[in-house]
Amino acid sequence: MIQIAIMGLGTVGTGVARVVAENSRQIERKLGEPLQVKTILVRHFKDGPYRQLMTDDFKKIEEDDSIRVVVETIGGVGAAYEYTKRALMAGKHVVTANKQLVAEKGCELLELAKKKNVNYLFEASVGGGIPVLHPLTQCMAANRIDEVYGILNGTTNYILTRMVRTGAFFADALREAQAKGYAEADPTADIEGIDAGRKTCILADLAFGHQVDPDKVPMEGISKLSLRDVKLAERAGYRIKLLGRAVRLPGGGRTAYVAPHLIPEDNPIAGVEDVFNAVVIRGNATGDVMFYGKGAGEMPTASACVADVMEALQASPRREEIGWSPDTDGFEDPAELHTRYYFRIEGSLTDAAMSFGQVEVLSEDGETAFLTDRISGLEVQQQAQNLKILACMRVLP
Amino acid sequence: MIQIAIMGLGTVGTGVARVVAENSRQIERKLGEPLQVKTILVRHFKDGPYRQLMTDDFKKIEEDDSIRVVVETIGGVGAAYEYTKRALMAGKHVVTANKQLVAEKGCELLELAKKKNVNYLFEASVGGGIPVLHPLTQCMAANRIDEVYGILNGTTNYILTRMVRTGAFFADALREAQAKGYAEADPTADIEGIDAGRKTCILADLAFGHQVDPDKVPMEGISKLSLRDVKLAERAGYRIKLLGRAVRLPGGGRTAYVAPHLIPEDNPIAGVEDVFNAVVIRGNATGDVMFYGKGAGEMPTASACVADVMEALQASPRREEIGWSPDTDGFEDPAELHTRYYFRIEGSLTDAAMSFGQVEVLSEDGETAFLTDRISGLEVQQQAQNLKILACMRVLP
Repeated sequence: MIQIAIMGLGTVGTGVARVVAENSRQIERKLGEPLQVKTILVRHFKDGPYRQLMTDDFKKIEEDDSIRVVVETIGGVGAAYEYTKRALMAGKHVVTANKQLVAEKGCELLELAKKKNVNYLFEASVGGGIPVLHPLTQCMAANRIDEVYGILNGTTNYILTRMVRTGAFFADALREAQAKGYAEADPTADIEGIDAGRKTCILADLAFGHQVDPDKVPMEGISKLSLRDVKLAERAGYRIKLLGRAVRLPGGGRTAYVAPHLIPEDNPIAGVEDVFNAVVIRGNATGDVMFYGKGAGEMPTASACVADVMEALQASPRREEIGWSPDTDGFEDPAELHTRYYFRIEGSLTDAAMSFGQVEVLSEDGETAFLTDRISGLEVQQQAQNLKILACMRVLP
Repeated sequence: MIQIAIMGLGTVGTGVARVVAENSRQIERKLGEPLQVKTILVRHFKDGPYRQLMTDDFKKIEEDDSIRVVVETIGGVGAAYEYTKRALMAGKHVVTANKQLVAEKGCELLELAKKKNVNYLFEASVGGGIPVLHPLTQCMAANRIDEVYGILNGTTNYILTRMVRTGAFFADALREAQAKGYAEADPTADIEGIDAGRKTCILADLAFGHQVDPDKVPMEGISKLSLRDVKLAERAGYRIKLLGRAVRLPGGGRTAYVAPHLIPEDNPIAGVEDVFNAVVIRGNATGDVMFYGKGAGEMPTASACVADVMEALQASPRREEIGWSPDTDGFEDPAELHTRYYFRIEGSLTDAAMSFGQVEVLSEDGETAFLTDRISGLEVQQQAQNLKILACMRVLP
């Protein structure tokens, strides 16, 4: 019998308890012995099926040597950070879905786990139930990773899908997402690209082996996106999606950012709709590999946590290859990237051509929408300074 | 310095040597020390960059204690089976892309590997460079796997894509695939569904934990597929794809087979074109997760082998959770499956209705094409016996 603890009993924490109970047969077959949740750390006691497992005293976990793995589903960097450190110090494996903590403190926590010869695993922090980080770090370990990009936030993808399918305005689509429980009452972290940004940092950390600080990563969401751009893009054969991208630059540097992009409709990721997520990993040997599925939700995310619990127990003493250098050198501004840009300006085609030379016109009726050739973000800033810009987005190659 | 051997120097074997050389920096960073190909087993010596590593004597590998991992890329079950057994007996990890050997002898070879406390890994045998087996066995380990299906053969998917896009007949599309090097001179294993069938067996073995014998798995290819059905399906909103499917049956049994299917065009797998592969894994917690990319080719497949080499070295002493029972009980004929069927018959709608009751008509002009309600394969055999059947395929739900 292997015993574990859960910290936090929100959506994911409850899911972890459910997966351990409902899939006990599958888990025991793989582990060779049964898995049991012994203790659940909560702030306030509540009635329910797990009442007798609850404690509000972290020491009950920290000092219990029979607990070998702790699943942290508290969220944020306050108590979660503190308890994760103490659990690792106490020689326990820690598993989490907490993307904010991994993005901000992951490098330090992995270092501590290494010292204590235990695992700190966080597959569920990116893509929920979709396997992404293990494939990236293990299955594609013989590749040089050149780029990772993806639809990393289901809420915003649901809103964009509604805008495309029903012609809804952003605000209406957001209200619909909230009514369906896909968006929180305060949707800021989702719609402003912050949630996707944290996941992008984790992908960049693992893909390139260097710490990427979230506060260096430009995060632009979809709250300013106009229905007009969605329609113009669609007519020209593109879909607008919020992408997190982590790119190895030709000069050897690396960059990462989150922003809405125009994606050619024959790219498989253009067809990813509703609350689904997808991540594309480009290896120099494999080419593009895509992972697709439900990126959030109680059971998918929880099952990824439980798989990490099993991995932590089986990878003895620990998985060496998950980690990255604290050195942030080589991180460059995404303005270094060369790509095509979409513009909608208040002005004529002549105005567009004066700034960018030859462009591909998408629409001309008072406003002008067009695509530039491949240029850098720096060139965009210089060449577009005399234009009245209504919208500007990168086009995915 | 870690030393390995390669057996066989065809496309994949050469790729393994190239990946080890070209991505040496990435590999060393992950492994903590350099990886080197020491010996390559060939039948006939050839000039080239690896001339000085070649031997035609397997004992040079078997008796060399400095070789810790052997990559088997010979193919087939003859010499590959013999040498794999002897390499495992000698205490070496073995890694392979050989789907025939894994489908037929995998269970026995895994048992032997377990006895010798080494790894037998074969990620590259399904999906080439796309991570599929590791995600299935590790990342989704906390799920009950209810179904796995996929486009597992790039050659046939290329042919089907040409038939849809250019209206080419099967024979012409096959010749085109051969001219481009996507199909072999003898294309039987690809177009008759045998290659996809072996991969389906491996997926079923790992998903359900019981041996699935390839000779029990019905394998139907695309050589009899008519362009007329491709066009009728497309007009009705479906794409025809060759799928391998492994399904957990409601009664607790399991089945597996390969056959062309009609797939609704809003299913992401319907958009998988050309030589690309895709595998969908349905877990009871994660829901459907899809893995997409290049399923074959020198560098993608080789990079999956090299990742397994690294995994074999890091998973000490061995990965316990990869394996299945030799017991084949519970395997049932796919006729047990309930699903909708597509028919094209020489006859009228009245003939169709007399056999199947209410049907959905797709076309009526001398021949009649229609979709049935959900029925079992056994019911199809009984109810269709008076019809002149020109085509019959399952419809993916």
